[in-house]
Amino acid sequence: MESKVNAIDKLTHGIEPPSEEWRQRARQRLDTLTKPLGSLGRLEDIAAQVAAIRGEQLSDSASKAVYVFAADHGVAEEGVSAYPREVTRQMILNFLSEGAAINVLARLHGAVLRVVDVGVDADFGSIPGLLHHKVRSGTRNMLREPAMSEEEVEKALRIGYQLGSEAAAAGHTMIAIGEMGIGNTTAASAVTCALTGATATLATGRGTGVESAAYANKLRVVEAAVAKHCSASGALQPREILRCVGGLEIAAMAGMVLAGARHRLVVVLDGFISTAAAALAVGMAPNALGFLIAGHCSEEPGHKILLGHMQLTPVLALGMRLGEGTGAVLAMPVIESAIALYHRMATFSSAGVSEATQ
Amino acid sequence: MESKVNAIDKLTHGIEPPSEEWRQRARQRLDTLTKPLGSLGRLEDIAAQVAAIRGEQLSDSASKAVYVFAADHGVAEEGVSAYPREVTRQMILNFLSEGAAINVLARLHGAVLRVVDVGVDADFGSIPGLLHHKVRSGTRNMLREPAMSEEEVEKALRIGYQLGSEAAAAGHTMIAIGEMGIGNTTAASAVTCALTGATATLATGRGTGVESAAYANKLRVVEAAVAKHCSASGALQPREILRCVGGLEIAAMAGMVLAGARHRLVVVLDGFISTAAAALAVGMAPNALGFLIAGHCSEEPGHKILLGHMQLTPVLALGMRLGEGTGAVLAMPVIESAIALYHRMATFSSAGVSEATQ
Repeated sequence: MESKVNAIDKLTHGIEPPSEEWRQRARQRLDTLTKPLGSLGRLEDIAAQVAAIRGEQLSDSASKAVYVFAADHGVAEEGVSAYPREVTRQMILNFLSEGAAINVLARLHGAVLRVVDVGVDADFGSIPGLLHHKVRSGTRNMLREPAMSEEEVEKALRIGYQLGSEAAAAGHTMIAIGEMGIGNTTAASAVTCALTGATATLATGRGTGVESAAYANKLRVVEAAVAKHCSASGALQPREILRCVGGLEIAAMAGMVLAGARHRLVVVLDGFISTAAAALAVGMAPNALGFLIAGHCSEEPGHKILLGHMQLTPVLALGMRLGEGTGAVLAMPVIESAIALYHRMATFSSAGVSEATQ
Repeated sequence: MESKVNAIDKLTHGIEPPSEEWRQRARQRLDTLTKPLGSLGRLEDIAAQVAAIRGEQLSDSASKAVYVFAADHGVAEEGVSAYPREVTRQMILNFLSEGAAINVLARLHGAVLRVVDVGVDADFGSIPGLLHHKVRSGTRNMLREPAMSEEEVEKALRIGYQLGSEAAAAGHTMIAIGEMGIGNTTAASAVTCALTGATATLATGRGTGVESAAYANKLRVVEAAVAKHCSASGALQPREILRCVGGLEIAAMAGMVLAGARHRLVVVLDGFISTAAAALAVGMAPNALGFLIAGHCSEEPGHKILLGHMQLTPVLALGMRLGEGTGAVLAMPVIESAIALYHRMATFSSAGVSEATQ
């Protein structure tokens, strides 16, 4: 066990919270800009948060990247998804040929897109455009055994951490995490129950669209998986939750969150699954929380539970439930707007505009 | 009266609703794209609406413009704003020197910005960069007399209509309306009361930030103005409401909404005041409603009343209350995302992705 504890210590090492001094400085500057006090609403909070994250390295624009981590889930064999398991593989090919929603959004909004195979149950050979980091061809069925071994969790976490560190080294200042994996809302629901104590009923949604009987089955699977792994020993550590009921892409996203926080990047969350990964990362390293921006609020009920758990207010609420990082990338223009307004607006004194008389 | 009725008839002439056939066609296409059914949420509604608006002319990107109409308000002398009246003039100069929030956002998101003096109480000479269409140096104080004469309303409506028609001729496909005018939330509150029957208490907010005593005064002014002009004769026609308690920039924005609908443009609303203008335009020409997208929900309580009145669901809700078109331009990347996704995503069959099995 000792070596594993050390390993995790390394990934959570050196994460300091965002700078409260910079946040205050940003708040003061915002109040000098030619607008009624506080009238930019949430954009002011976002600008102040980005200033607190970036500190001395704050710049008036962002270099953006979105990472889509893909993996299969053993639990998919329980019939928890409306789509067959091979869709994970098919969607990878769709990403590579620029046909998926995230391709369109990343291109439109100027974010570099990277697609990472961290555990898809398919052989992609050395197909170009894909980052090949397969840990295993999908997790084990969490209804029967832990989804991953200790070593698999560690590997997947390290892949995300490594890619996050590389993103920082490449000059990216804002990263989004997204995913693809048939069955992964089931894993995210189980993570939510284990992490927050929510019931399966509250934390389980319809995912990509399961109906009545299939939904009842999904609910049963989440409940049984959580009961199997979590009931006996009381509250589990985040890493144990991740190992037993998480997924390879969830672990990789958690690793990327840790690296993002370590390198003081703005980390934009997507929907339910990426937020589950972030909640696990924050469980491992609480200082990571201040680096997160919730891109949107999805239709998955468990997503709201996790956002509440971390006290994150989502930027957008558009009723989306697609994943792939789409909600995160859609929030990026709003975040960039906050940054640009902060830097580029005139002040009352520079523009010769009278201040409020009251 | 006859000639005035004819004049308004012209501005509301030829406005057909968006095409339901195109909306249905768009819905069908959306269901073939490589994503779970309905998983793009509001983006799907927006894409279908834009298809219904643009019909045969639907394209995969938008040419965007934002018009900021500025005017002063006679009622400002009642002390209804936290800012002195000269701020309207000062902000015009700030717009022209690119220092205001709308300058930053329009540039960042690629929207052409036009600033229109439709009634500022200041002499701008022939200063370049400003569209000079001053009808009068501010409205009259609606607490004492109607804010405008019949002729002034007509002129201001026509200015907006003309600019909207020019925007269409210039190839813009999406226009946003914004405003600047110290005192204009008071006018918008009075319009809201007169149009929807809401009480002044419900429809009046703190505008740019009036506090306690000044807010009580603002409430009294709205109540008295509405009582003076609207109580005797029962429900007023939208044009009469506009004339008595509206404003020159509100009339111009209403005119632009009518032209936008006439030329089948996507018309993006900003906050409370532009939405009041749109509600008046819809009162004059109900078919204009289908061309409107509510960019955001502001903090002004009257804004929610008007959005409910027109049954519009705002794209964003970021607690903004700035005006200038900022909330509208901030929503444009979301609307553009919907359009791009609709056009550019692969279909299940083209990408070889399996459809749902349930």
